[in-house]
Amino acid sequence: MRRLSTQDQNFKQVFSDLLAFETVNDPELLKTVDQIIADVRQHGDDHVLKLTQQFDRHPAHQFSDLELTQEQLKAAFDALNPEIREALELAAERIRSFHQVQKQEGWSYVDALGNTLGQKVTPLDRVGIYVPGGLASYPSSVLMNAIPAHVAGVPEIIMVVPAPNGELNPLVLAAAYLAGVSRIFTIGGAQAVAALAYGTQTIPAVDKITGPGNRFVAAAKRAVFGQVGIDMIAGPSEILVYAEGQNNAKWLAMDVLSQAEHDTVAQAIFITPDADLLEDVAQAIEEHLAALPKADIARTSIANRGALVLVKDRAEAVELINQVAPEHLELCLDDAEAMSQEVRHAGAIFMGRYTPEAIGDYCAGPNHVLPTSGTARFSSPLGVYDFQKRSSLIMCSEAGVKTLAKTADLLAQQENLDAHARSARYRYCPETNF
Amino acid sequence: MRRLSTQDQNFKQVFSDLLAFETVNDPELLKTVDQIIADVRQHGDDHVLKLTQQFDRHPAHQFSDLELTQEQLKAAFDALNPEIREALELAAERIRSFHQVQKQEGWSYVDALGNTLGQKVTPLDRVGIYVPGGLASYPSSVLMNAIPAHVAGVPEIIMVVPAPNGELNPLVLAAAYLAGVSRIFTIGGAQAVAALAYGTQTIPAVDKITGPGNRFVAAAKRAVFGQVGIDMIAGPSEILVYAEGQNNAKWLAMDVLSQAEHDTVAQAIFITPDADLLEDVAQAIEEHLAALPKADIARTSIANRGALVLVKDRAEAVELINQVAPEHLELCLDDAEAMSQEVRHAGAIFMGRYTPEAIGDYCAGPNHVLPTSGTARFSSPLGVYDFQKRSSLIMCSEAGVKTLAKTADLLAQQENLDAHARSARYRYCPETNF
Repeated sequence: MRRLSTQDQNFKQVFSDLLAFETVNDPELLKTVDQIIADVRQHGDDHVLKLTQQFDRHPAHQFSDLELTQEQLKAAFDALNPEIREALELAAERIRSFHQVQKQEGWSYVDALGNTLGQKVTPLDRVGIYVPGGLASYPSSVLMNAIPAHVAGVPEIIMVVPAPNGELNPLVLAAAYLAGVSRIFTIGGAQAVAALAYGTQTIPAVDKITGPGNRFVAAAKRAVFGQVGIDMIAGPSEILVYAEGQNNAKWLAMDVLSQAEHDTVAQAIFITPDADLLEDVAQAIEEHLAALPKADIARTSIANRGALVLVKDRAEAVELINQVAPEHLELCLDDAEAMSQEVRHAGAIFMGRYTPEAIGDYCAGPNHVLPTSGTARFSSPLGVYDFQKRSSLIMCSEAGVKTLAKTADLLAQQENLDAHARSARYRYCPETNF
Repeated sequence: MRRLSTQDQNFKQVFSDLLAFETVNDPELLKTVDQIIADVRQHGDDHVLKLTQQFDRHPAHQFSDLELTQEQLKAAFDALNPEIREALELAAERIRSFHQVQKQEGWSYVDALGNTLGQKVTPLDRVGIYVPGGLASYPSSVLMNAIPAHVAGVPEIIMVVPAPNGELNPLVLAAAYLAGVSRIFTIGGAQAVAALAYGTQTIPAVDKITGPGNRFVAAAKRAVFGQVGIDMIAGPSEILVYAEGQNNAKWLAMDVLSQAEHDTVAQAIFITPDADLLEDVAQAIEEHLAALPKADIARTSIANRGALVLVKDRAEAVELINQVAPEHLELCLDDAEAMSQEVRHAGAIFMGRYTPEAIGDYCAGPNHVLPTSGTARFSSPLGVYDFQKRSSLIMCSEAGVKTLAKTADLLAQQENLDAHARSARYRYCPETNF
């Protein structure tokens, strides 16, 4: 695995090149996606069916074959092995508890002039959640997308999940049942995003689309943004593990691999000031790879985008962490909490030696849909706040408006907006004739 | 002005056609904007200067001529007429007070198993604010963009504002001084957005770009979304005024015109169950137009996109309001607060007869950057929350992790993610050898 040191002469350049990743700027991809969106807007169900038959080799004959019934979901849930059902229920319960704390309420106050000001918070009417898929589709993603929407109070949750060859992980259906999804369509790709954004004869148009997908999905989400809301443009998964002091190299190595096994373009970075630990982790990674089913993917990911980085001290590590703004950050050291205070940008911070990232993927409680590719600089984990929006509230009293109306009148005149000025003036000179 | 009634046979279609508006889907526009972004990324300062000379006819000879100094801002502030300065200060103070209530703090709790879960809230490092411009540029927009960023704790605020022919409203500079903007560049259009998103030799790359602009700006913001965060894709301004009971038709007519004067594609809609009031407002609009400096713009806006709508009752009005999801909503009736409870989607709600929308544009306190074109269905006014982001915090104890690690192990196996499963398993079977 690639070894870097901050002492290397060209470190800054090499490290910054390693981080560079642009998902959806390929003009051919954008053109394809734009065409799919235009066709779905024009032809609706028919075109979605056609593309699903073509790209997913789905055996459906008519569009209605692509919708699952609540009975199918319930049947999948009822058929679960009890141990798995219990695990899924525990995960759902913990995700719900954590997200309930995120729920925002409205507020208002009366100012010194007697005017009421406030903020109203309401859930979205209808959302679409995208679950990546096929046989490898993730029940955990269903919970992570649907539960926050539920907690926010969204009345209608439409889920899409591609089913290559018509096959689907039954656990995904069970999770959809558990999370209270309203309707499910077994479609994916840009066509699913287009259908959710604009609606078809069968699929109702939603107000927001959340959840990660491949580069077609990412490009389509960007293209429909404005027509609907979106959570973020998802890139490949990433982990940055920082360790110092007493640590088990095998554990750290497996944590690094847990992201590398996701995708050949996933990014796994290990940082330490301890040169011996760095070599121990490098060796443990090699040993683990020999026995890992997804070793090929992990090897490619590590070769393409992975690195073991030796730093001088913790302060240097903090600087690199804030530069990367990693999706997942593990801080494996004694005073992880103190170090976390210095971290300005990260999707999720896993602290201490007993908090592997994988816990967060399933059942710790916080969301596993997290900002990737450095977007933690400006965005947040998927949350209840993604399914709520705010409206400002303003109610002036007849007396309280006078000062404000005079001020607005004056400033509007400066901006040459006379109707604004006059509209304000009426409220403090009611008899004004213009 | 166009009159509609919900009793018209084709009302639904006509009303829905009236609302239709797509800003940035013109392929030629997108191509132009993509080229500008690519050129700015490649040539930096030089290209921004060239386009600013070309599009804005700016007399600058070198890039440094496009940056204003803090001394220039202070001079503009010091030269203000005292009455105007007082108005600007009152507005700034009220905007600051309101937005302080929006500021979010982190939290954490310990679960029943002894694991710590939480959410950390941090400000963005550096943001760019776009202020539309020239001589008609708006000092109020400077306050509305910069103050929430300040309240959030953003250390560096970079403002761009186009200065056609090199001319700028001095009040904009004074507002930038008052709001504590870090640096100002007199550039605009897609080139300003590209420079903020990717940085140039002189302009530092920011993490998020906020503020409305023309269709080039809107298209550029969409294109750089992902590289940086953006607040929203702004469309033309809108107002929906609902009135019933005793009202002054002249006031209502001026409120309607206060949005129509903004832009020929602005949208002003008046709704009432009172046929007489509807005609009175129609007549007052005509009378006002005769004396309004921006009557030409307002007339075109009204002809293109305006309407006076007669409804059967309040319930019908609520339905239309939720369909429109207006940027600005005035509820001019006795029990406006009760009616506001039924409104699910609106950027800002102005209640009662003494709350003209213009108050909200300048000095009520809430933000005037609001979701347009129906996007209030899923988005919020610009706020402090736009300049903060969250990181999840997870710290498991050695005992507390056991249940979670078992659950994660089991679920990860179901998803065929073995490194995930093994990484979790180490934490409850520390001696495991894979």
